[in-house]
Amino acid sequence: MVVRSIATSAAVKSVHTTCSKNLRVDTMNTRLRTMQYAVRGEVPIRAGVLSKELESERQQGISNKRPFGKILFCNIGNPQSVGQKPITFFRSVLSLVDNPRLLTSASVHTLFEDEEIERAHDILSYLPNGSGAYSDSQGVEGIRRNVAQFVEKRDGYSCEPSNIFLTNGASSAIQMLLTALIADENDSIMIPTPQYPIYSALISLLNGKQAGYYLDEESNWSLNLQALESSFDASVSQGHRPRAMVVINPGNPTGNTMSYDDLCTVVRFCEKHNLVLMSDEVYQENCYNPTERPFVSCKKIVQDLGSDVELASFHSTSKGFIGECGRRGGYMEMHNFDPQVQAEIVKLASSGLCSNLDGQLMLDLMVKPPTKGVAYSTHMDEKSAILDSLKVKADMVYEMLNQTPGVSCQPLEGAMYAFPKLDLPKSFVDRAIADGKSPDSMYAISLLESTGICTVPGSGFGQVKGTHHVRMTFLPPKDELENAMKQFQKHHMSIR
Amino acid sequence: MVVRSIATSAAVKSVHTTCSKNLRVDTMNTRLRTMQYAVRGEVPIRAGVLSKELESERQQGISNKRPFGKILFCNIGNPQSVGQKPITFFRSVLSLVDNPRLLTSASVHTLFEDEEIERAHDILSYLPNGSGAYSDSQGVEGIRRNVAQFVEKRDGYSCEPSNIFLTNGASSAIQMLLTALIADENDSIMIPTPQYPIYSALISLLNGKQAGYYLDEESNWSLNLQALESSFDASVSQGHRPRAMVVINPGNPTGNTMSYDDLCTVVRFCEKHNLVLMSDEVYQENCYNPTERPFVSCKKIVQDLGSDVELASFHSTSKGFIGECGRRGGYMEMHNFDPQVQAEIVKLASSGLCSNLDGQLMLDLMVKPPTKGVAYSTHMDEKSAILDSLKVKADMVYEMLNQTPGVSCQPLEGAMYAFPKLDLPKSFVDRAIADGKSPDSMYAISLLESTGICTVPGSGFGQVKGTHHVRMTFLPPKDELENAMKQFQKHHMSIR
Repeated sequence: MVVRSIATSAAVKSVHTTCSKNLRVDTMNTRLRTMQYAVRGEVPIRAGVLSKELESERQQGISNKRPFGKILFCNIGNPQSVGQKPITFFRSVLSLVDNPRLLTSASVHTLFEDEEIERAHDILSYLPNGSGAYSDSQGVEGIRRNVAQFVEKRDGYSCEPSNIFLTNGASSAIQMLLTALIADENDSIMIPTPQYPIYSALISLLNGKQAGYYLDEESNWSLNLQALESSFDASVSQGHRPRAMVVINPGNPTGNTMSYDDLCTVVRFCEKHNLVLMSDEVYQENCYNPTERPFVSCKKIVQDLGSDVELASFHSTSKGFIGECGRRGGYMEMHNFDPQVQAEIVKLASSGLCSNLDGQLMLDLMVKPPTKGVAYSTHMDEKSAILDSLKVKADMVYEMLNQTPGVSCQPLEGAMYAFPKLDLPKSFVDRAIADGKSPDSMYAISLLESTGICTVPGSGFGQVKGTHHVRMTFLPPKDELENAMKQFQKHHMSIR
Repeated sequence: MVVRSIATSAAVKSVHTTCSKNLRVDTMNTRLRTMQYAVRGEVPIRAGVLSKELESERQQGISNKRPFGKILFCNIGNPQSVGQKPITFFRSVLSLVDNPRLLTSASVHTLFEDEEIERAHDILSYLPNGSGAYSDSQGVEGIRRNVAQFVEKRDGYSCEPSNIFLTNGASSAIQMLLTALIADENDSIMIPTPQYPIYSALISLLNGKQAGYYLDEESNWSLNLQALESSFDASVSQGHRPRAMVVINPGNPTGNTMSYDDLCTVVRFCEKHNLVLMSDEVYQENCYNPTERPFVSCKKIVQDLGSDVELASFHSTSKGFIGECGRRGGYMEMHNFDPQVQAEIVKLASSGLCSNLDGQLMLDLMVKPPTKGVAYSTHMDEKSAILDSLKVKADMVYEMLNQTPGVSCQPLEGAMYAFPKLDLPKSFVDRAIADGKSPDSMYAISLLESTGICTVPGSGFGQVKGTHHVRMTFLPPKDELENAMKQFQKHHMSIR
């Protein structure tokens, strides 16, 4: 601590206030301080401030002098925050299980469909104490059985409920596995570039090393074996020990869906180098070209190839057509892992007691949707409406981006995002660099300030040096999104 | 990897299977491997196996040869798993908010009380997208405002919503703060002995050091300034840097409630040594002698003393009379912290996106219960019934423990646990040591196997060397608990 003998009392006070804290920026965990998470970083934070200003001005009757009336939050895959309605069946059953008094009320049959009531009774049969108690650390056994059946039906291979971990969203499952994996600061994790930044954030927090491998943007973000081998070799040559490889399929932020062949390449690569494979499959229901490019799980590929690769697969209730982000429901399937390691991960889960029960319940409903009667037909109508609308919006955004001079975007086959490449004028790039900013951050801020559209700079996900991107969701209602895309086009062409 | 040139093919296969894994017990994160969490450790795991055996035998019609018919899970504070009913108002409002279709149904007024409907509308006013979207990383602002008002009303001092973090249970808040605090392996955290093992588990996982300070069992687990100073000095003399001090009030596993004077001692001690104070107050509603020993928050003490100690306070929906463990609702209030550090903790929260919304909603209801009409009177009746029953059971367990020769237990003023001290015969202790077990673990296992009562050995919480304890909840229904205590007495007197 610096001791200052001559100072004004205000300065002394200020120094004292700053220095007397035990927990300061300079005494805190450096790994947390340097960790970055762009999805809720600088641009979204600025958007939040603008949104509050707009709201406060509206309340005070102050006229809005900005070129936009509201902020369009395209920074995060949060469907129900931009108008998507919850699925009726899921919320009906959730309310019956959380408030079982409704099940015995006289009007239950006028308020709920038969299948909803049946499903609630079904759940209460394997959740006899209801949703208010801690469950097993790994999650309710009956729910893990249903998840295992869902996986079996999807892939055509067996799945053990004891390999399923129910978690607070996929994020928490990813953190559990990386916590077990990263043994010291030389352990590296291979992640795609670009990637969803929870990987870079957690690797940094857990004191590991990133080993980025590039996806090939020009061929629709496909995988390149040579890029994988280079990334592996580069990591080893720095004295690091690659432990695992992450794939995100369908891609976030890239919006592609991986081909069967690319997935085989991944599994063979992990076999060759004895890597754990982490497969982030939270967008598996978000496939917009399912005939030509269907989703195939890594679990199926591993089984098709008869591989013994250690595979951890992640899924969530937050995406798909459900979009139940607030529930924080998710699961991890551990396949081919050492049972002793799996027991250690159970211990880790048990130190947090269990994941939240409403998240577990939503997951249960997601993997076992209605199959008959009115509940089924309503459910299928709602599902199609949401997925069809996402496909329409994906196509529109794809076309409007590619119609814009200086913007190119690969086909949007899956997930909820476009990740367009932006040609930026040299003067703009130079100005950003002179200001100590990344050009794409300056771009995203200027887009926000002039149109109200909140995106995330490509640098938050990783990109080839010298290229510039932003990630934007195509979740908002079609008319708002169409208008926003027109604003985007206008703004992009005005960039100097 | 060991290469074996001569081996049977089965052995080769087995060696291969074990050694080919990337993630093995010997290559995983050592800090996770050595981490212990006794609340769901050896004894509860054995209890789970026994419980399944009993169930399976019952289903197959095999007669039970054990001296007990079921396992009584007294290892964990999980009220609704042992028969406590959820509070009507909370579940009613939760179901209305999660399934707002009910609000517009014709029978809403026959199914729900006016206050329940009003409260649901109130919540939806500050949660306009409902409970299916990610909230702010720190939690829904309207809920944080209600938490702040609850804290203000409780303590008589102001509280800022921006200092409130809504989390997946208190566990997750504790992990966030310790993640920021533990900067390297020399940072130590002062924790009580005995303590709730999430502290020792997380300190170990996050690569910090424990500095245990003893509570004085004989004077009802009170604080001893000399013990605090010795613990601090011992940590410093080992080259460690004490960063924070943890208090658990009311005490877990000790069942005491801290006096006003002891709390002042804690705050002054933290001031003197510039320590962050972490106050675990999840049992603040569980006080069974509120006239003589009321709960006082550390926040109030810090304000009463005009102290600038950095204080993090934790609370939860899992305990109190609510017992909504499955919701995983909790909050942390950060008081007197550096705003820059607080911003880093917001970033950490945002990397997990947000805590689950049903947990946030339950917390909202907990801090703002009904105030009028039928909903209010029902609520107060349910609350009193649960708290009165807990008091009766605490008194019964206290008396029956102290009536048992060789067992002593301090007054049970708060929380949900008894932590009796057990005199064990020398022959028993010697046998345990010869078997490489801690005597209290061997005791807890023998208690389980002969009575079906599942407890947690004192060694999982920490205890003075040479003393032996178990922790048991007094949550089960009174008749079951009374019967269990009789079995306990019989078992204890049979120990040789």
